Amino acid sequence: MENDFVKEITPKTEDFSQWYVDVILKAELADYSPVRGCMVIRPYGYALWENIQQLLDDRFKATGHKNAYFPLFIPESLLQKEAEHVEGFAPEVAWVTHGGNEKLAERLAVRPTSETIICNMYSKWIKSWRDLPVLINQWCNVVRWEKSTKPFLRTAEFLWQEGHTAHRTKEDAEEEALRMLEVYRDFVETDLALPVIKGEKSDNEKFAGASKTYTIEALMSDGRALQAGTSHNLGQHFAKAYDITFLDQDGQLKYVWQTSWGITTRLIGAIVMVHGDDRGLKIPPTIAPIQAVIVPIFGRQTELVLNKTNEIFTKLKSEVRIELDDRDEYTPGWKFNEWEMRGVPVRIEIGPKDIQRQQVVLVRRDTGEKFTVSESELLPRLKTLLDEIQENMFNQAKRFMRENIRKVDNFDEFKQIIDTKRGFIKTHWCGNPGCEKYVKEETGATLRCIPFSEQSTLGRCIVCNKESNIIAYFAKSY
Amino acid sequence: MENDFVKEITPKTEDFSQWYVDVILKAELADYSPVRGCMVIRPYGYALWENIQQLLDDRFKATGHKNAYFPLFIPESLLQKEAEHVEGFAPEVAWVTHGGNEKLAERLAVRPTSETIICNMYSKWIKSWRDLPVLINQWCNVVRWEKSTKPFLRTAEFLWQEGHTAHRTKEDAEEEALRMLEVYRDFVETDLALPVIKGEKSDNEKFAGASKTYTIEALMSDGRALQAGTSHNLGQHFAKAYDITFLDQDGQLKYVWQTSWGITTRLIGAIVMVHGDDRGLKIPPTIAPIQAVIVPIFGRQTELVLNKTNEIFTKLKSEVRIELDDRDEYTPGWKFNEWEMRGVPVRIEIGPKDIQRQQVVLVRRDTGEKFTVSESELLPRLKTLLDEIQENMFNQAKRFMRENIRKVDNFDEFKQIIDTKRGFIKTHWCGNPGCEKYVKEETGATLRCIPFSEQSTLGRCIVCNKESNIIAYFAKSY
Repeated sequence: MENDFVKEITPKTEDFSQWYVDVILKAELADYSPVRGCMVIRPYGYALWENIQQLLDDRFKATGHKNAYFPLFIPESLLQKEAEHVEGFAPEVAWVTHGGNEKLAERLAVRPTSETIICNMYSKWIKSWRDLPVLINQWCNVVRWEKSTKPFLRTAEFLWQEGHTAHRTKEDAEEEALRMLEVYRDFVETDLALPVIKGEKSDNEKFAGASKTYTIEALMSDGRALQAGTSHNLGQHFAKAYDITFLDQDGQLKYVWQTSWGITTRLIGAIVMVHGDDRGLKIPPTIAPIQAVIVPIFGRQTELVLNKTNEIFTKLKSEVRIELDDRDEYTPGWKFNEWEMRGVPVRIEIGPKDIQRQQVVLVRRDTGEKFTVSESELLPRLKTLLDEIQENMFNQAKRFMRENIRKVDNFDEFKQIIDTKRGFIKTHWCGNPGCEKYVKEETGATLRCIPFSEQSTLGRCIVCNKESNIIAYFAKSY
Repeated sequence: MENDFVKEITPKTEDFSQWYVDVILKAELADYSPVRGCMVIRPYGYALWENIQQLLDDRFKATGHKNAYFPLFIPESLLQKEAEHVEGFAPEVAWVTHGGNEKLAERLAVRPTSETIICNMYSKWIKSWRDLPVLINQWCNVVRWEKSTKPFLRTAEFLWQEGHTAHRTKEDAEEEALRMLEVYRDFVETDLALPVIKGEKSDNEKFAGASKTYTIEALMSDGRALQAGTSHNLGQHFAKAYDITFLDQDGQLKYVWQTSWGITTRLIGAIVMVHGDDRGLKIPPTIAPIQAVIVPIFGRQTELVLNKTNEIFTKLKSEVRIELDDRDEYTPGWKFNEWEMRGVPVRIEIGPKDIQRQQVVLVRRDTGEKFTVSESELLPRLKTLLDEIQENMFNQAKRFMRENIRKVDNFDEFKQIIDTKRGFIKTHWCGNPGCEKYVKEETGATLRCIPFSEQSTLGRCIVCNKESNIIAYFAKSY
C-alpha cells in the first residue's frame, strides 16, 4: 500500500505549469473529464468552492443583494442587441441547435455571461424609481469555448457568480461598482490570503460593453498576474440596447445605470499557485475544508492511542473542521505526506509518549514548525494557531508581491524583466491604446490595471516617451 | 398607487391551472423568460430554493455525502453506452453542435441527468474495495426539451440535486437507495409540510436504466399526484456499461452496485399547489424566506409607531426571518393583501393603541386567526406560533390526502372517481404491465407507486380480475 506519490509532483522550479497540474490532480481538487476543455471538480475542490460561496454570499447579502436564477440559454437575437458585447463573446459561444430530434428555429447560446438575458427581464420588471436599485446576484455555470484550457484557470465550462444591478443615477452605479470591488478585495485578501492590486482596466482590456472595468490583480508565484475579480460600471449601454427605463420622481422617463461583477472558480487556481510548494497545496485556514488532521502514532499501543485520538477528535470537531485519520493500512509518514499534499494547515500527532505526558504535537503546514502543547490547552492554542497561519500566509504572499513590483522607466529594462523575473512592472503610460498594444506585441505583457493607490506623479510613457501622469501596472498574465 | 392585485388572481375553484400560474407570477416566485420553456426564478422564489438546499444539504452531509461538480456537456457516444438510459432520455436532449464558429466533431448533450458522465469518472477513480462506498451529490441545472411546460413543474431547464453512489454489495446499494428515500420523506414532510406516500415504481414507470425506482408521491389540492422525489437502485446496469470495477477483499474483480436520487425545483410548485389558497401562497414557516412581517398602523402618530416597530424589528431580527414594511406609499390594507399573497406565515400589526396597551396584534396566514399578545411575550409566542403553523399546515394537508385516498375494486367506479374527485385510487393490480397500460389509456391515471406501508392483502386486479396481493396507488399526475 505504501506509495511515494509525493515524489511524483514535478518540482515547482523545474516546471511550474506541470507542478500546478500535478498538485491539482494528486490533491484531488479536480480531474480531467471526457469532454474537451471541461474538468470535474472533485469533492475536496468543491468543498473549497462551497466555503468561497458561503463567505462571499454572506458579504453579498450584507450589502443588500439577493440571489436569483436566469436561464442557461440565450436566443441568438437577444445576445446580438448590444454590439460591443456580442463582438466580444460570439467567438467563444457554444450553440444549441437541436432539441430532441428537431432543429430549432433560432440557435441558443449557452450563456457566456448573463447581461443580455437579465437586461431583458429588467426591462420588464423596472417601471418606477421606487423599483430601484435592483440588486441581484446569480451563482451558476457559464461556458466559453476556449482554445487552450487548464484546470480552474481556463476551462470551457466554469462556475462563478455574477452580480447585476440597476440604479437610478450614474453616481449610484459608480458607487456600487466600487463597493463590490472592495467586497472582492476584502474577501480575497482576508479569507484567501491573496494580496491584490486594486485598479481600473484600460479601454482595451475592459469588459465588452462596459463603461469602466475595475479589477483586483493577484500575483502568482511564477511572477504572472491573475485577474482575481472584476466589477464593471456598465453605464447606460445595456439599458439603451435593452430598453430599461423608469419613471423618475420628476416625472421623466430615464434609462437606468447598471453594474455587473463576478468571481469564478479560477480563484481556486490562484490559491494553488500563490501558496503551494513542492510538497503540494497550502490552504489558508479560513477556507480550508479540513483545518486540522489528527494522525495517531500507534507505537505498540493501538487501543490506547485510538481511544485518546477519538476523545480529542470528539472534543474538537464542533469547534474546528477536523479529521481523524485512523486508517490502519498506511504508516504515519505516508499520512503526513498525504495531508501536506492536501494543504491541511495543522497536523496533530498523538503517540503513547504524548499521552503519558498529557500533550500533543502540532505541526504547521505553512512553516513546517513543530511543537508540543499540553492537552488541556489544545483547543485555544489551535484556534490562535489557525489565525497565525492565516496571517502568515497573507504576509508571505504580500512580501512576495511587494518584491515583485518593479518601477521601470526604460523599455529595454522592461523587456528584460518580463523575460526573466516577470512580476508587475510599474511604469508611466500616455493613455494611448497604440502604446499599450506595442508593449503587448513586443513583450507579451498586458496592462493589468491603473492602480488606485498610487500617487499620480509626472513621468514619461514607457513607449512613446510622452509626458504623462498615468501610472500603469503591466505583467504577463493567466 | 393603490391596486387591487389580489383580485387579479383567478379563484382556485374556477381554474386551478390559471390560479397556479397567477400565484407564481404575482407573488414573484418566477417569471416567463424569452427562452422557450425556460423560466426565471425571481429572488423570492430563489430564497425558497436556498432554504430547501440548505436543509437538504445538511441531511446529505449528515449521512456522509460530499458535493462535487461534473461537466454540463456529455459527448453523444458516452450517453449511448447504457441502452435503456439513452432510449429514455434521447428524445428530450438539447444538443450543442457548434463551438464559436466551428462545427464540433461530436455532438454534446446538455445533461438531462448525469449518470453517464459520473460513471465514466467512477470507472477511473474506483480501484479497490477501500475506495467504496463513493457517496457524491451534485447541485446543478439540467435540461430536458419538454413539449409543454409550466413554471416549476415542467420546464426545459430546471435546478436539482442528483446523488450518485457506488457500493461494494447489492445490499449496501439497496440500503442506500432506501435511506435517501427516507431522507426525502423526512425533509418533505417535516420542512415543506407536504405529506407523501412512500413506495416503489412499477417497471413501466421506473427510471431509464434502474433496477428499482423508489418514490415519494404527494397529492396536490386539485387531486393530482406529484412525484416529489425519487431514489433509484441502479443495480449493476451502469457499472457494466461503463466498466466500473473494483478489487474486492477476496482478490476478485467485481462490478460496483450503484444508486442515484434526486429532487428538483418542482417541489416549489408542490408547496404552491398543496398549501395555497385564493389569497395566494402559504409558505410553511421552516422554509419561509420571511417568517413574519411587521406592518405599522400609523394612525396619526407616524413617529411613535415607526420608533416602536423599529425597536421590535431590531429585537426580533436575529431570532426569526422578519421584515418591517414601513413603506409610506401603501395603506395597511394593501400591505396585508401583499404579504398574504406572498404567503408570509405571521403578520404583526402595531398601531398607537397597541403601543399604549404594550401589545401587538398577530395574524396567522394559515387560519386567518387574529389575536393580541403583550409585547414582552412576543418573541416566545412568535416562536411557538411558527411551530404551530408548521404543524397545522402539515395536518391539514395530511387530512386532505387521507380523505382523497379511495379504495376501489370496480373499474367503472375507478373511471368515475378519476374523472370527478381524482385523488389516489388504491386498488389491486396483478403486476402485468398490460393492465397498467390499459388503466392509463382508459382513464389517464398512472400507477404512482406500490406503497410500502400497506399490508398486503389478497384481492383482484382492477383490470383483469386475476387474484393478486399487490396493492397499487393510481392517480392523474403532474
